Amino acid sequence: MKTYQELSREELLKLREQLEGAYEDAKGKGLKLDMSRGKPSAAQLDMSREFLDTLNSDSEMKSENGLDVRNYGAMDGIPEAKRLMGQIMGVPAENVIVCGNASLTVMYDTVSRSMTHGVLGSTPWCKLDRVKFLCPVPGYDRHFAVTQHFGIEMINIPMTPQGPDMDMVEKLVSGDESVKGIWCVPKYSNPQGYTYSEETVRRFANLKPAAEDFRIYWDNAYAVHHLYEDRQDTLPDILSLCAEAGNPDMVYEFCSTSKITYAGAGISAVAASKANLDDIKKTLTLQTIGFDKVNQLRHVRYLKDMEGVKAQMKRHADWMRPKFDAVLAVLDKELTGLGIGQWTRPNGGYFISFEAMEGCAKAIVAKCKEAGMVLTEAGATYPYGKDPKDSNIRIAPSFPTPQEMEQAAELFVLCVKLVSVEKVLADREQAGEAAVG
Amino acid sequence: MKTYQELSREELLKLREQLEGAYEDAKGKGLKLDMSRGKPSAAQLDMSREFLDTLNSDSEMKSENGLDVRNYGAMDGIPEAKRLMGQIMGVPAENVIVCGNASLTVMYDTVSRSMTHGVLGSTPWCKLDRVKFLCPVPGYDRHFAVTQHFGIEMINIPMTPQGPDMDMVEKLVSGDESVKGIWCVPKYSNPQGYTYSEETVRRFANLKPAAEDFRIYWDNAYAVHHLYEDRQDTLPDILSLCAEAGNPDMVYEFCSTSKITYAGAGISAVAASKANLDDIKKTLTLQTIGFDKVNQLRHVRYLKDMEGVKAQMKRHADWMRPKFDAVLAVLDKELTGLGIGQWTRPNGGYFISFEAMEGCAKAIVAKCKEAGMVLTEAGATYPYGKDPKDSNIRIAPSFPTPQEMEQAAELFVLCVKLVSVEKVLADREQAGEAAVG
Repeated sequence: MKTYQELSREELLKLREQLEGAYEDAKGKGLKLDMSRGKPSAAQLDMSREFLDTLNSDSEMKSENGLDVRNYGAMDGIPEAKRLMGQIMGVPAENVIVCGNASLTVMYDTVSRSMTHGVLGSTPWCKLDRVKFLCPVPGYDRHFAVTQHFGIEMINIPMTPQGPDMDMVEKLVSGDESVKGIWCVPKYSNPQGYTYSEETVRRFANLKPAAEDFRIYWDNAYAVHHLYEDRQDTLPDILSLCAEAGNPDMVYEFCSTSKITYAGAGISAVAASKANLDDIKKTLTLQTIGFDKVNQLRHVRYLKDMEGVKAQMKRHADWMRPKFDAVLAVLDKELTGLGIGQWTRPNGGYFISFEAMEGCAKAIVAKCKEAGMVLTEAGATYPYGKDPKDSNIRIAPSFPTPQEMEQAAELFVLCVKLVSVEKVLADREQAGEAAVG
Repeated sequence: MKTYQELSREELLKLREQLEGAYEDAKGKGLKLDMSRGKPSAAQLDMSREFLDTLNSDSEMKSENGLDVRNYGAMDGIPEAKRLMGQIMGVPAENVIVCGNASLTVMYDTVSRSMTHGVLGSTPWCKLDRVKFLCPVPGYDRHFAVTQHFGIEMINIPMTPQGPDMDMVEKLVSGDESVKGIWCVPKYSNPQGYTYSEETVRRFANLKPAAEDFRIYWDNAYAVHHLYEDRQDTLPDILSLCAEAGNPDMVYEFCSTSKITYAGAGISAVAASKANLDDIKKTLTLQTIGFDKVNQLRHVRYLKDMEGVKAQMKRHADWMRPKFDAVLAVLDKELTGLGIGQWTRPNGGYFISFEAMEGCAKAIVAKCKEAGMVLTEAGATYPYGKDPKDSNIRIAPSFPTPQEMEQAAELFVLCVKLVSVEKVLADREQAGEAAVG
C-alpha cells in the first residue's frame, strides 16, 4: 500500500474524485451525530436509575456521625462521602473535602481564590504583573478557558505517552517565579487517553518550584474509568509522593462522580494537604453553608464502597467499549499505512485523540460538520484555541450509540481522506510553483 | 411598675440577689439550647419527607423542554425551575438563573466575580484602591463576612422599621464612586424582621449612583416565609421598579429554597436584568457544567407552583409560630416597662431582634452561654463583629422545640435582667464617683 505522499498526481486526482462522490453520498444521508463532548448517553445514565431510589421518605437521613444531612453544616462533607471520594482518588478521607456537583467549579474556585487571596498567605495573584500556567497539550479545553478567563498566561507543554515533557516542566517551574500552576489530567488524559508513568509522577512530586505558591492541578477525572478488564492503567498517588519529597502542599487533586453516576448531579471533591485544606476552608466557610449532603449520602448509599464503584464502572465500560472499538476498527481499517493520521488507543477515559496531517484539523472538522457530525472544535485542545500545527482532533465516542458510532467513524475517515488528498495536492502544487519560480 | 433606672440602690441590690439565685438555679438545670442560627429543626425538615419520593427510578427525567436533567447542560436552569423561583421572587422566569444549593454561594461568587472581572465591563474591583459596601445594621453576619473577606470597606447604615435610612443611602451612593454595593434583606429582615416599605423600595429603585458598577444586593431570603395567616408583609418587585426608573441593571436579587425544602439541599437563584444575566453567564460557562438539574426537577415536581409553595410555608409557619409566640410572650410578660430592652414582633422570617441597654449585649450572651444556651455572638449583626453600642442580640427560635423555646426565653430574660441590674448599679456608681470626683 502506498501513502498519500507516494501517490502520483493522477492517482491523487482520481482518489479525490472518488472521495468527493462518497462525501456527497454521505451528506445525502442527513446524519445528525454529536461527538463533541465527553457526555454520557441516555442509556449510560439509565444504568444509574436505582440511584434515585436510594433515598426516600423512609430513609434514615443521618450521616454516620449523627449529622442530619438535610440541615446546614459539615462544610467539608459527611465522613462516609469523604472516605468514598478518598478511595476513588487513593487518598485518606482526612485529605478530602467533598464539594458540589462539578469538579470544574472546584477548580475554577481554586484559581479564583488564588487570584483574590493568594495561596497559603502568598500575594494574591491579581496583584502580580504576570501569572503563568503550564498547559500540557493537547489538553482539556475547559481548563484552559478558566486560566484564560483570569488573564493567566498559558505555556504549551508537549505531551508524550508517559505524560508531559518533564524536562521542560522542571526547567520552567524551577526557573520562573511567575509560573504558578500546571493543569494535569494524569490518568486517561483528555484527549489522548495517556496515563502518566510512575517516573513522570515522581518527577512531578520532586519539582523545586521557584514560586512558593506553585501548585499542580491534578484533575483525576478518570481515576476509575477503565474500558477493558485486562488492560487497566495505574497511577501512583501524587499526594503521598509529594509529602515524601518534602512538597506536601504542592498539589491539589480533583475528582467527581459526574461520569460514575449522573453527569449533571454527581458530587465532586478536592484532596490536598491539611495546610491547603485549612486554607480552602477559610474561604468555603464564607462561600457556602455546606454542599448538598443529601446527594453525598445518596451517593454513598448507592455506590457503597470501591467494590460498588468498580461494579458500576464495569457496567459503563461494557457500554463504552464497543463504541471505542468501533471507532478504532474503522480508523485501523481505513487509515493504516496511508500516512495521513495517527490516533491513540486508550485503556480508559472518554476520548480518542487523532493527529491529522499538519494544517488539516480545522478543515476535517468543518467537513464533518457539513455532513451532519459535530466534533469538538479544532484547536479547542490547545490554550487560546490555537493548535499551532492545526492537526489535533478530539473524538468523543460516549454520546452516540455504537451503531451511530460506526457511521460517525466512517464519515470521519472519509473527511480525513478527502482533506488529506487536497492537502497533498496543494502542497505538491506549491512545491512545483516554488521549483518553477 | 418602675423601670430599673427608677429603682433605688437598695432595691437594685435586693433584685440582683434574687436574680443571682434564680440564675444559679437555671445553671443547675444543665440546659443545652441552641438559638444561634436560623437553622430549621428536624421536625420542620420532616415536613418535606415526601420530597425524597418525588423522583425515583420510574420518573420521567426530562424537563419540559425535553432536556435530560441527569446530563450536562442548561447553565441557567431548567425552564420549570426558573419559572418557580421567579414566582417566589415575583419576577419573570427569563430574568432568573437557577443555581446550586446555597444563595450564599451565589452572593459570594457575585462579589468575587466583581473583584476579578468587574461588572458589565467596569474595572475589576481588585484593581481599585478602595471599594465600599453599605451595610444596613443590624444585619446578616454572613453578608458582612463576604465583603470583609474581600477587603471591602463596610459602612453602617441604621435600620428603621421602614428599611435602611434612605437619606444616608442616597447621599453615599450618589456622592461616592467607591460605593459599589449595599446588602439588603428587604423582607422580614435578618435580624429585625422588618420589611422595607414601598417608599423605601422606590427610593432604592431611583438611586443615582456615582459608580456605574454600583449594585443593590437584594437578598430576598424570606420572600414567602410568613408566620401568620392574617399578618403578611408585601414587598414591591425591585426589578421592575428599577427598570421603570431607568436603572434596569442596578440590582441583583437572590433567593433559595433552603428554608422551604431542605436547608442543606435546596436550590437557589439569582434574578437580574438581561444584561446582568449575560454578564454572569460569561463566567458561569467556565465555572460549571450546569447546576444540579435533578434537584431542580425534584423541587418543581414536589412544590409544583406557588400554591404548593404557600401550602408548604403554611406548614412551616404552623410549626414556627408557637416558638415565636412563646418568646414574645415571655419577653412581654417579663420585660415590659422595665426600660432594659426592646424587641421586634416580626410577621415572618427567622429572627427576633433584641435591643438591650447599651453595653450589655456581650454580657447577656455570655451569661446565657454559661447556663447552657448558645446565642448568635453579640456583635455578629454588625460589620467586623462590632456593634458600636454593644446592644443588639439576635434570637433565632427555629431550631429548639416550642417547649425548649419557652425555657430558653425564660433563661434569656433572666440574663437580661441580671446584666441590666449590674449595668445600672455600675453606671450609678460611676456617676457617683464622677460627682464626688
